[in-house]
Amino acid sequence: MKKLEEAVRQFREERDWEQFHSPKNLVMALMVECAELAEHFQWLTQSQSRNLSPEKKEMIKEEIGDVLIYLVNLSEKLGIDPLEAAWEKLGKNSKKYPADQARGKSWKYHEYE
Amino acid sequence: MKKLEEAVRQFREERDWEQFHSPKNLVMALMVECAELAEHFQWLTQSQSRNLSPEKKEMIKEEIGDVLIYLVNLSEKLGIDPLEAAWEKLGKNSKKYPADQARGKSWKYHEYE
Amino acid sequence: MKKLEEAVRQFREERDWEQFHSPKNLVMALMVECAELAEHFQWLTQSQSRNLSPEKKEMIKEEIGDVLIYLVNLSEKLGIDPLEAAWEKLGKNSKKYPADQARGKSWKYHEYE
Amino acid sequence: MKKLEEAVRQFREERDWEQFHSPKNLVMALMVECAELAEHFQWLTQSQSRNLSPEKKEMIKEEIGDVLIYLVNLSEKLGIDPLEAAWEKLGKNSKKYPADQARGKSWKYHEYE
Repeated sequence: MKKLEEAVRQFREERDWEQFHSPKNLVMALMVECAELAEHFQWLTQSQSRNLSPEKKEMIKEEIGDVLIYLVNLSEKLGIDPLEAAWEKLGKNSKKYPADQARGKSWKYHEYE
Repeated sequence: MKKLEEAVRQFREERDWEQFHSPKNLVMALMVECAELAEHFQWLTQSQSRNLSPEKKEMIKEEIGDVLIYLVNLSEKLGIDPLEAAWEKLGKNSKKYPADQARGKSWKYHEYE
Repeated sequence: MKKLEEAVRQFREERDWEQFHSPKNLVMALMVECAELAEHFQWLTQSQSRNLSPEKKEMIKEEIGDVLIYLVNLSEKLGIDPLEAAWEKLGKNSKKYPADQARGKSWKYHEYE
Repeated sequence: MKKLEEAVRQFREERDWEQFHSPKNLVMALMVECAELAEHFQWLTQSQSRNLSPEKKEMIKEEIGDVLIYLVNLSEKLGIDPLEAAWEKLGKNSKKYPADQARGKSWKYHEYE
């Protein structure tokens, strides 16, 4: 991950894209890439989304790469370590959704029962 | 990253959330988390987005954590390695935007010159 | 629709929010509102999304209101008539997806058959 | 607006797309269309976004059309009147952000002052 962060910064600097890569612009680009990823799933049933063709998976892998590149780019600009951020959030979520109580139901889903 | 992937899978299994975590649902949740991240930036000027308060950065760090958690969760479900995906995409982008030609201009930006 | 456009402009002017409401900021806000709308659906099955409770529909109605307000606000700033834009696009789509050929299948869906 | 709603329903029925057009899928498609709209703005400065070329405006108009089509399609499926929803929300916002207090500052923006 650190290596990727370094490569992304170098990629940006070699192209002198600093001027375009404000955190505000990067977060917009991140949303756009997420949407390109989502586009592959929008008309699929749940089960189709669990059984993708190899060709489709290749295309999705590219979009996942784009999303991670922009997330790392944004994080690097903000001086935030995305892995550290994920670990901290996972810890909070463990407290928020205790395994014994959360089993088999999502709170959000639960509203609909 | 592998450790995070393992932790995310364990988190999901302990709560038996497999049934909700179809790739389709996870990609929707990923977009929603990205939007919560973007919400912190929507009214900011470019320069404000480059100079965030520590309090604001803490909140943004949490959202970055959420985005990475869902991205890793989705990737794990699809059997895609997000770091590998990012490295491959970065390689393609290097060819697509040669440093010497791309210097100081974004193609998308360029349209507006 | 024209009345709504006029009310949205007046709302903005009375609050002197012109300075924040650049098209760039408005489109970010539009995406964020769409995500708040999507959040209500992310863990639902297709059939649950077709059978929402009245309480849930009330909450969704509010988000739909927000999305339309920002879309009208953005369009008004750009001097674009959203209804005219929709009619023109619907005409293009009719040519792109002739009813007789498109019946019972979405192109995007079709990839997965 | 009513006419557009009717045309969107007819468009859907003529193609028998009912099966794909669950509210869940439509809200995903709505987000994807919003992102395609946002893509035109992501690298722009605020002032560039206020001074778009006619060519760019034409492309943006198409995306605005797509967003409204999906918003109307979703609303129609849910039996929600989007204009009524917008008017109700605008009324709530007027109370939430009284013109005399809100003048010249956005609450969200205010955090950064």
